[in-house]
Amino acid sequence: MSATTEWIAVDWGTSNLRAWGIAADGSISFSRSSHRGMGKLAPPEFPGVLTSLLADATDSWGARLDVLVCGMAGARQGWMEAPYLDAPTDLSCLGSAAVRPAMADSRLAPRILPGVCQRLAGAEDVMRGEETQVLGLSALLPGFSGVAILPGTHSKWIEVAGSRIERFSTVMTGELFEVLSTHSVLRLSLGGDTAGPERDAGFDAGLDAGLAHPEKLGGMLFKVRAGALLSGRSPAWGSGFLSGLLIGAEIGGQRDWHTGGEVPLIGSATLCGLYARGLALLGVASRVIDATDATLAGLKAARAA
Amino acid sequence: MSATTEWIAVDWGTSNLRAWGIAADGSISFSRSSHRGMGKLAPPEFPGVLTSLLADATDSWGARLDVLVCGMAGARQGWMEAPYLDAPTDLSCLGSAAVRPAMADSRLAPRILPGVCQRLAGAEDVMRGEETQVLGLSALLPGFSGVAILPGTHSKWIEVAGSRIERFSTVMTGELFEVLSTHSVLRLSLGGDTAGPERDAGFDAGLDAGLAHPEKLGGMLFKVRAGALLSGRSPAWGSGFLSGLLIGAEIGGQRDWHTGGEVPLIGSATLCGLYARGLALLGVASRVIDATDATLAGLKAARAA
Repeated sequence: MSATTEWIAVDWGTSNLRAWGIAADGSISFSRSSHRGMGKLAPPEFPGVLTSLLADATDSWGARLDVLVCGMAGARQGWMEAPYLDAPTDLSCLGSAAVRPAMADSRLAPRILPGVCQRLAGAEDVMRGEETQVLGLSALLPGFSGVAILPGTHSKWIEVAGSRIERFSTVMTGELFEVLSTHSVLRLSLGGDTAGPERDAGFDAGLDAGLAHPEKLGGMLFKVRAGALLSGRSPAWGSGFLSGLLIGAEIGGQRDWHTGGEVPLIGSATLCGLYARGLALLGVASRVIDATDATLAGLKAARAA
Repeated sequence: MSATTEWIAVDWGTSNLRAWGIAADGSISFSRSSHRGMGKLAPPEFPGVLTSLLADATDSWGARLDVLVCGMAGARQGWMEAPYLDAPTDLSCLGSAAVRPAMADSRLAPRILPGVCQRLAGAEDVMRGEETQVLGLSALLPGFSGVAILPGTHSKWIEVAGSRIERFSTVMTGELFEVLSTHSVLRLSLGGDTAGPERDAGFDAGLDAGLAHPEKLGGMLFKVRAGALLSGRSPAWGSGFLSGLLIGAEIGGQRDWHTGGEVPLIGSATLCGLYARGLALLGVASRVIDATDATLAGLKAARAA
């Protein structure tokens, strides 16, 4: 890609760091990634990590380049705190609320976008990074109003109206899967391939159970273990069941959020496909939007505003 | 205690081993305990661990003593597998279903009681140890019919009719608390004293939330983290909230099990007290029965039958 880089888009999450060079026409001039996520860095390390990630991309630059950063780099324990916007909020002001951390390398002018919080007592919630994807959604699907789901470690359910976030809720589905499959007694009954007919059969059984009785999640979890002991369920079946159960309980428990319209699912194709199966069982249509596409559209919109 | 030991009652769980000498009149002649639970032992180690636990208690014995064992020692990966009874089942045959592991020390004649399983597809479940407490309950509260709750790492809800187990369900409440507070992002917002006004306030808030919306457990868990970030909630409040939320979601999710009568709670006084608070909010009366009392009553009843 030989297009001239006009600015740099960065998604700096807890686990990973990704950067894209953006040309004047919006095309991508280069992309870089690293595992040096916010969770592994102390605040003084961020500038050096960014410079080194962009080293061979920046060698021939003359002018100073904007670097627009979203994600956990703006957390209190990140590079520099970018105070939250309070939901309900309009994301059209996302870019103007960015903070500017110091940077010794004068070729780069970084800005970090804020996250969004919800201070309502009993419904406190926070996001960092997903707000940029929602702003991207408003560019990719102009005029969209309704609920968007961003599946992941901490799934976000977000009520969106154009570029506004009305309210949101985080469901710890991905992290529950991770800690239960690594540290609980269920680990003894899990494993095997991440795809295949056994895994699929377990997923479907778990999905049905979770959708039907999200209020019994803590009880149905143990079916993973008991199914292995009594019914000879394979580790692949168990992993599928646990995944389906947690996703089903998430979707079933959020039933009051469904508004009837098509639901954008923003995330990886594989994970979004699993959520789409669950939503379809409730008669809810969905469409998958690639997470990177949403992030880039959001960073572009934030910079343009 | 100088009463002559007639037999020995043993509760051999995953984490701990406890033994009591029982005299002819049912009184306790001695008691011993150790941390050498089933989870830390290979099958050939069990006889030696038992002999050594009872060493100074058995020195002066002449006759061979019955040792009646309940709990995880009878699991497949324990001392010797004691095959499950299938629920629904009458526990009056518990003693006759015991298995007899080999024992080099001829002074001891051990028998291991079976657990109970439920093979119904989709409701598979297992218990080892709790069945003995239920048999004890039928001796302590003769004629009791209804639901008993055994709170713990794996809480058991058991529909009991006299000495019969009609059905049961395991809820992983204690283990969820453990893995989430040790391994999830929530650990950053937990800690402090295990008692006190902050912990109590958090517990009450979590209990209310869990009882009202057990179907939203995966979403409300994140309020621990968001409450700390946004509302300055203390680690003690967070730990109380997490505990209350999980217990509330357990009780709220099992609402269809409540039959209207008084619920026996079998466990530690502290934990049972927390469950009693949750049940009371639903208008359900409960009474606490000490776990050791129930275990001993059950082992006595199993031996007498």
